[in-house]
Amino acid sequence: MDVVILGSGNVATHLAKALKAEGENVVQVYSQNLDNAKLLATEIGADAIANYTNLISTADLYIISVKDDAINEVAAQLKNVKGLVVHTSGTTDINVLSKHGLKSGVFYPLQTFSKAKSISFDNIPLCIEAEIESDLDTLEKLANSLTSKVYKLNGEKRKVLHLTAVFACNFPNHLYALAAKILDSNQLEFDILRPLIFETADKVMTNLPIDVQTGPAVRDDQNTINKHLSMLNNLPELQDIYQTLSNSIKITHK
Amino acid sequence: MDVVILGSGNVATHLAKALKAEGENVVQVYSQNLDNAKLLATEIGADAIANYTNLISTADLYIISVKDDAINEVAAQLKNVKGLVVHTSGTTDINVLSKHGLKSGVFYPLQTFSKAKSISFDNIPLCIEAEIESDLDTLEKLANSLTSKVYKLNGEKRKVLHLTAVFACNFPNHLYALAAKILDSNQLEFDILRPLIFETADKVMTNLPIDVQTGPAVRDDQNTINKHLSMLNNLPELQDIYQTLSNSIKITHK
Repeated sequence: MDVVILGSGNVATHLAKALKAEGENVVQVYSQNLDNAKLLATEIGADAIANYTNLISTADLYIISVKDDAINEVAAQLKNVKGLVVHTSGTTDINVLSKHGLKSGVFYPLQTFSKAKSISFDNIPLCIEAEIESDLDTLEKLANSLTSKVYKLNGEKRKVLHLTAVFACNFPNHLYALAAKILDSNQLEFDILRPLIFETADKVMTNLPIDVQTGPAVRDDQNTINKHLSMLNNLPELQDIYQTLSNSIKITHK
Repeated sequence: MDVVILGSGNVATHLAKALKAEGENVVQVYSQNLDNAKLLATEIGADAIANYTNLISTADLYIISVKDDAINEVAAQLKNVKGLVVHTSGTTDINVLSKHGLKSGVFYPLQTFSKAKSISFDNIPLCIEAEIESDLDTLEKLANSLTSKVYKLNGEKRKVLHLTAVFACNFPNHLYALAAKILDSNQLEFDILRPLIFETADKVMTNLPIDVQTGPAVRDDQNTINKHLSMLNNLPELQDIYQTLSNSIKITHK
């Protein structure tokens, strides 16, 4: 399949490399910034472009992987292409593409990507959607070549999933960062927490989180909760987070 | 080393098994509830007791692994023992033991234990403390036989560590549970989030969390944040958590 990648961020990069590794023919990488386009294009043997006039119109698939609020603007430039056009956003409706008269789809990988860390696609859930059944078949085949976890989801469900990813990924990572901050101000290394963080996540690989909750709040150990809150007296923002989450644990397990 | 375990909960169970596996001689398991004591004692070839009058006084080490607010009461029953007495609590001062005239120490494994999941001790941080240098040496030797991660920490630092464990373990697990709840009410499976949860934890095994934060709040993507908040209109408690943590991410990354 001839594929054009529009974007050069974390998702575009990981996806382009995975497609290349599966034998797809990634022909062009577009970015507003030619240097960024080149960085990715060189790695996967594609052409880098920074001008829509250079875009080929005959590719089978155009993957728009840019910031949510830039998707519309990129899609508007693709009016002459014949191939299937997808975006990779969890929160954006498919009609941001179809309203431009494009053959439209969504190809949303549910994962947290950093340039700093390579990751295998095998185990990444890919959520797909298309306006036409035959396009959905095309995306399903492609997705199956990348991962064993392919989900056909409409826009509403995809948006719910994206919301839960904030709870399951962005917020926990921030709580790790707050823990690191407290440790640091007490001359303790973050490294000491790493086995605990890993085990906490590993535990829910085979259990439901509600069944393996531990800590003072689920035990209703108000004595320890009060000690912790008083240790955070000089950090009212963290005290607020501690209180809010502890109350929520208590309510959930009442 | 002859060891007596006082307690039969998650920590007592995992610790007793690990000590046994390292060749220590676990001679007795005490629990208020004889059936619970038997359950653990049978597994490790020890005697089960439910009455302090049956406690041997000649063991080298007594490990009190009970609820924090029961430690004092158990310690009060050990006045006649000659060996070292330790507790396994992150939040309890060593003087809950020493005030009873015991040779006192702390042996605190920083991990989340569930009966449902076995876990290797190799990688678990063990935080040790003792009143007397020679007792600290004894605990260090024992701890080193169980894990490569041994930390000598005073009570103040241990309490800080325990507080950060709530942020790095108990709260993230609850956020996983909230995500599961949202998914469930939208007929989506928790399984779809598992690779993301795993990767989020795995990422901070080699990075600092502040360097790998992702999501709408760190991008200051207020449009997505507003969409998410409106999706939570019928769940004010989750809306409050979303708002509190998003604000904290924004402040941290400003």
